[in-house]
Amino acid sequence: MSSLRHATGLDVRRACQRGELTGPTPGLALGFVQANLVLLPKDWAFDFLLFCQRNPKPCPLLDVTEAGNPEPALAAPGADLRTDLPAYRVWRDGELVDEPTDLRGVWRDDLVGFLIGCSFTFESALIEDGIPVRHIEQGVNVPMYRTSIDCVPAGRFRGPMVVSMRPLTPPDTLRATQICAKYPRVHGAPVHFGSPEAIGITNIQKPDYGDPVEIRAGEAPVFWACGVTPQAVLARAKPPFAITHKPGHMFVTDWHDRDLEGDNSPRIARS
Amino acid sequence: MSSLRHATGLDVRRACQRGELTGPTPGLALGFVQANLVLLPKDWAFDFLLFCQRNPKPCPLLDVTEAGNPEPALAAPGADLRTDLPAYRVWRDGELVDEPTDLRGVWRDDLVGFLIGCSFTFESALIEDGIPVRHIEQGVNVPMYRTSIDCVPAGRFRGPMVVSMRPLTPPDTLRATQICAKYPRVHGAPVHFGSPEAIGITNIQKPDYGDPVEIRAGEAPVFWACGVTPQAVLARAKPPFAITHKPGHMFVTDWHDRDLEGDNSPRIARS
Repeated sequence: MSSLRHATGLDVRRACQRGELTGPTPGLALGFVQANLVLLPKDWAFDFLLFCQRNPKPCPLLDVTEAGNPEPALAAPGADLRTDLPAYRVWRDGELVDEPTDLRGVWRDDLVGFLIGCSFTFESALIEDGIPVRHIEQGVNVPMYRTSIDCVPAGRFRGPMVVSMRPLTPPDTLRATQICAKYPRVHGAPVHFGSPEAIGITNIQKPDYGDPVEIRAGEAPVFWACGVTPQAVLARAKPPFAITHKPGHMFVTDWHDRDLEGDNSPRIARS
Repeated sequence: MSSLRHATGLDVRRACQRGELTGPTPGLALGFVQANLVLLPKDWAFDFLLFCQRNPKPCPLLDVTEAGNPEPALAAPGADLRTDLPAYRVWRDGELVDEPTDLRGVWRDDLVGFLIGCSFTFESALIEDGIPVRHIEQGVNVPMYRTSIDCVPAGRFRGPMVVSMRPLTPPDTLRATQICAKYPRVHGAPVHFGSPEAIGITNIQKPDYGDPVEIRAGEAPVFWACGVTPQAVLARAKPPFAITHKPGHMFVTDWHDRDLEGDNSPRIARS
């Protein structure tokens, strides 16, 4: 689907809808904001919304739908969360039971959708600034780790923060911090750098999710709050029913990466 | 209560608890973050949380409690929302029915508390930077206006954004924008400056809330999203039961104004 590289968010969503795109979305619709998806029944939605509100670094909310309405009206008016992602994961009692490419067979009228910011936006900004992003250079998944940093619990949701790691030199660490701080809605500035042990990571070459990457002389690991955190928290809370995107198979919004700069929500920025 | 001017948030809350402080809080516990309060029954809480999430400029959430628990554990561990404010307003079906100084007689086990950022924090930062804040100079309330900017609706909540206004010269407008942008959790950067008509304000000398202030030669009105917005939205939605703080009689947190700078939630900043 390399023809979708310079497509819009709408193009990618339509390709999903038509069943033409069922693969991962990194590198597609460059410059458009991609998002993690969580769908939960209404009676679990308040706790999860509260969890995200209390933990904005790992769980920055871009859009939340109302129960039964599959349209994320802020991030992509007219879009349909049931059909517009390439692939989904369906969970029952915390167990993965299916990986469908649309939700027509499992949709329920009590589902609330959560779109959560993802690191692609700040990685684009880093690369544009000439800062190396090692896992992209090496063509692998970003390494991610469970930490000893507890998220703030909310209702039935609790668990450790998951972080992603990119090795950087000290000057690049300082520069990356300034760049990422401009994007609070896609995890913002890093949460730690240096000693992995200080945040409970015992082996930097054995990530809990994704792939290990090379850390070169003069570099230290730099850690960002990661959007896998809500999935880990969900797996632990075991709601009777939940749907997420399949990892790497994201929802592509109508927003441009630049729309997420600063403190304005995109809607206000345009009004 | 001028003895509370250099007190801590805890001192102010204890004075409220003991019934010694029933007056307004501006100027008390300088440097500590003060917050607007909304308490709603659980069955209205999801809609309101969603409204705040969709409208972060007028409704920046500092802390949200779980149903029946009066402790805002992030903003002030150990505090009690039933006793720790100087005065409250009780609403039934959108009508103001009482202004008690504690909630012992009306508390319900299904109430969820919302603490919402207020402008005192950024006003302190402006004053420290030498930027004049006219209503403070004139010793009156800040002028506030209903605008033609619609908030993003959420469930049963909808309505126009309310803004506060401070007159500034162009250089001070640019400087104030940079300062306030550092504080997204207390309304962030202004939403408009110049023509009041452009945002539906017909008479700048007749604010909908608060008092008019002088606009001097070389100054233009600068408008910030205002924490009165959620109260206006509540009044319109008319939930069967709601409690708010009495205007000017805020909840004083344990957080310092500086804790709200940047993209970190205070908890992460300290971890």
